[in-house]
Amino acid sequence: MAIGVGLLGLGTVGAGVAAILMGPEGRHPLVAELALRRVAVRDLDRPRPLELDPQLLTTSPEAVIDDPAVEIVVEVMGGLEPARSLILRAIAAGKPVVTANKAVIARYGEEIAAAAAERGVYVLIEAAVGGGIPIIEPLKQSLGGNRIQRVSGIINGTTNYILSRMADEGAAYGDVLADAQRLGYAEADPAADVQGGDAADKIAILAGLAYGGPVARAGIATEGIDRLDARDVAYAAQLGFVVKLVATAERVGDGLEGPGEAIPLDVRVHPTLLPKHHPLAGVHGVNNAILVEGDPVGQVMFYGPGAGAGPTASAVVADILNIAGIRRATGSQAGARLDPLLAASSWRRCTLVDGSGTSHRNYVRLQTRDEAGVIGRIGTCFGDAGVSIQSIVQFEAREGEAGGGAEIVVITHEVRESAFRSALAAIEALEEVRTVAACLRTL
Amino acid sequence: MAIGVGLLGLGTVGAGVAAILMGPEGRHPLVAELALRRVAVRDLDRPRPLELDPQLLTTSPEAVIDDPAVEIVVEVMGGLEPARSLILRAIAAGKPVVTANKAVIARYGEEIAAAAAERGVYVLIEAAVGGGIPIIEPLKQSLGGNRIQRVSGIINGTTNYILSRMADEGAAYGDVLADAQRLGYAEADPAADVQGGDAADKIAILAGLAYGGPVARAGIATEGIDRLDARDVAYAAQLGFVVKLVATAERVGDGLEGPGEAIPLDVRVHPTLLPKHHPLAGVHGVNNAILVEGDPVGQVMFYGPGAGAGPTASAVVADILNIAGIRRATGSQAGARLDPLLAASSWRRCTLVDGSGTSHRNYVRLQTRDEAGVIGRIGTCFGDAGVSIQSIVQFEAREGEAGGGAEIVVITHEVRESAFRSALAAIEALEEVRTVAACLRTL
Repeated sequence: MAIGVGLLGLGTVGAGVAAILMGPEGRHPLVAELALRRVAVRDLDRPRPLELDPQLLTTSPEAVIDDPAVEIVVEVMGGLEPARSLILRAIAAGKPVVTANKAVIARYGEEIAAAAAERGVYVLIEAAVGGGIPIIEPLKQSLGGNRIQRVSGIINGTTNYILSRMADEGAAYGDVLADAQRLGYAEADPAADVQGGDAADKIAILAGLAYGGPVARAGIATEGIDRLDARDVAYAAQLGFVVKLVATAERVGDGLEGPGEAIPLDVRVHPTLLPKHHPLAGVHGVNNAILVEGDPVGQVMFYGPGAGAGPTASAVVADILNIAGIRRATGSQAGARLDPLLAASSWRRCTLVDGSGTSHRNYVRLQTRDEAGVIGRIGTCFGDAGVSIQSIVQFEAREGEAGGGAEIVVITHEVRESAFRSALAAIEALEEVRTVAACLRTL
Repeated sequence: MAIGVGLLGLGTVGAGVAAILMGPEGRHPLVAELALRRVAVRDLDRPRPLELDPQLLTTSPEAVIDDPAVEIVVEVMGGLEPARSLILRAIAAGKPVVTANKAVIARYGEEIAAAAAERGVYVLIEAAVGGGIPIIEPLKQSLGGNRIQRVSGIINGTTNYILSRMADEGAAYGDVLADAQRLGYAEADPAADVQGGDAADKIAILAGLAYGGPVARAGIATEGIDRLDARDVAYAAQLGFVVKLVATAERVGDGLEGPGEAIPLDVRVHPTLLPKHHPLAGVHGVNNAILVEGDPVGQVMFYGPGAGAGPTASAVVADILNIAGIRRATGSQAGARLDPLLAASSWRRCTLVDGSGTSHRNYVRLQTRDEAGVIGRIGTCFGDAGVSIQSIVQFEAREGEAGGGAEIVVITHEVRESAFRSALAAIEALEEVRTVAACLRTL
């Protein structure tokens, strides 16, 4: 018997989902058992890329949710409201929900999960992170035997496109952004992408799943690429690194916290130097990749198109199929118990800690007077703070930049953030140092 | 209530699984609900890397399967028999099975799947391909909305280790193999790895899942790396390619075949040239990666450790958790229906076709007389067959090699295999051409 699907939204992703459901040939046979019953659109008369029976269309999302023929509700309208309320309405009606809405899940995930658990329905979100890349379900269903150490990823395609071009062409941020906007890779208002907010939404979601409890979205330290200087991209390349906007969620303790015990996490988004052979370093253009490190699995990486109608629709349909599949197994009677892996109910608390206790490498660019002895004094400051240095290189300042002085780039070994900060304070106080022009974490 | 697990085998993978089950802290809480009830070993007195209650141990695998406290049977003993019979015995007893045994699944997968479907139990095999990389479950559960065009992968760590070192060091195959054997990366009898049989087992399994029907293991065209010349690795590098042992399953038709209709596939394993920016080209050492191309998802890749106790145990435990999770949802009564995604029952037939109808690029190394005009005559042969050439380069033959003649390397554009073969026949017939010394497919 067919399983009724209702769509909220018929934009590019919604249309992609409809196209899959209406062309089941050659796909998993369960696709043919899904029937599109009702579709909520903003404007009934707008021309559409695919032909739909006009009787399926309505301007009322509530009518889609309340339609008794709709058994699974798919929210692909985006935005915070009314999306959040509609998701809650579907849950209240006992209907499982599939959503691609990272903003809603990052902010209201806890409320939504609680309502879903209470009502005994699934809310699946594969499309919310990484576009077509299977990452949410593998985190839930394939890595549960591990203690997760770190989840890090390139999870914003717009910024990765901009950074790839800055690295390839030596171009300035502003020029590439303007070009990306012209080509449709960046929004007219690019703030959510370039300031890191979109990546922070997504790492909040990934961390919540990887560590088993909701992560406070507002507490994620976030720095975008909008103040990144093309020089740092170029210097990094000369030293064997690429600069990427990396979102990271890292466990600070030993990972032995049990259910109910809080696990301290360092969650952050910022431009990061990656050694050229790092698995994430080869991720170019609008692609995304997520690296999961756990014990005993080691490093596994998931790579692919991070956005776009087709990939995102693939992820949405995967979620619909999962709900349809488990319904085949359990029957559709209300009150059935949930599969704890698929439901991904939270099982411990996550607390965000500041990063001063974590250790990593650092890239620092200093503008200094062009004098003998400067490098020695900088090196001494690092040494006094117990920060060991991997390389210290003087680059020639370009005409008119750095006030005719020198530019010195230091890459440290892996050191505690607190020790690094105190070294940096001492360096800033040196008379010969004009400014700390850039400071980037380095994996 | 705890879910009883029985282990067949306590080698490195079995011990890795037991270690996870006995140390559930910090893992998904469902791990704590799994109880190791019985373990079959070959020798009760052998010293073990982990302490197990001696009462759990038995030398009888049948006793493990038949123990009423064992609800999930985990086969990690390897080999064809008795593994196959034991898996069938567990199925007959109505007990779901988790196995890491690629050889059994590649050869007897159809028999095992039929028995499992008949009895209504799951047989999960995440650990059979790609070690710790989640690839089996994503293929089953996350990509069902797609028409799969191609699945290609580096799925044998031993050969990838050897090829990585040949490329990095310019070393000869035999020398690196001997070193790999000394280091434990290659078996004393390396045939299954270096001749491609292990990769063929695995691509048979991946193709069966990606295309929805069993693939005849014996029909897979297989060529290993044991006859690969270090020169071809070096020449490929100079031309911007890396040589990898790639296993591929590619759909030959339009992919619109429905359930019940056979889908023609070209499935093969052989050394392959990859352009340096190909996603698989950056997979080094013993790592594995699987690239899945589908419509509409595009290209997604799964990367990680392809072998080893920890990664493989992670995959085995993932399967155990999936069975435990769905049992939570359905209850444990016999005769429950299966989730069609997790069960991955076959839904169409796959037929293997020879590759003459497929198109790809080619690398050819010719040993010729060192005469003017040879390149022109070779070019003409390709042109006459409609094979367009991307590059044709003459390398200096080393002392004593190629009989003092010339070595000419041709890389073609993407052409039909049949056209390429007829060009090659004409070239072999040229008087100036001594031999076609190497011929490798190129992606």
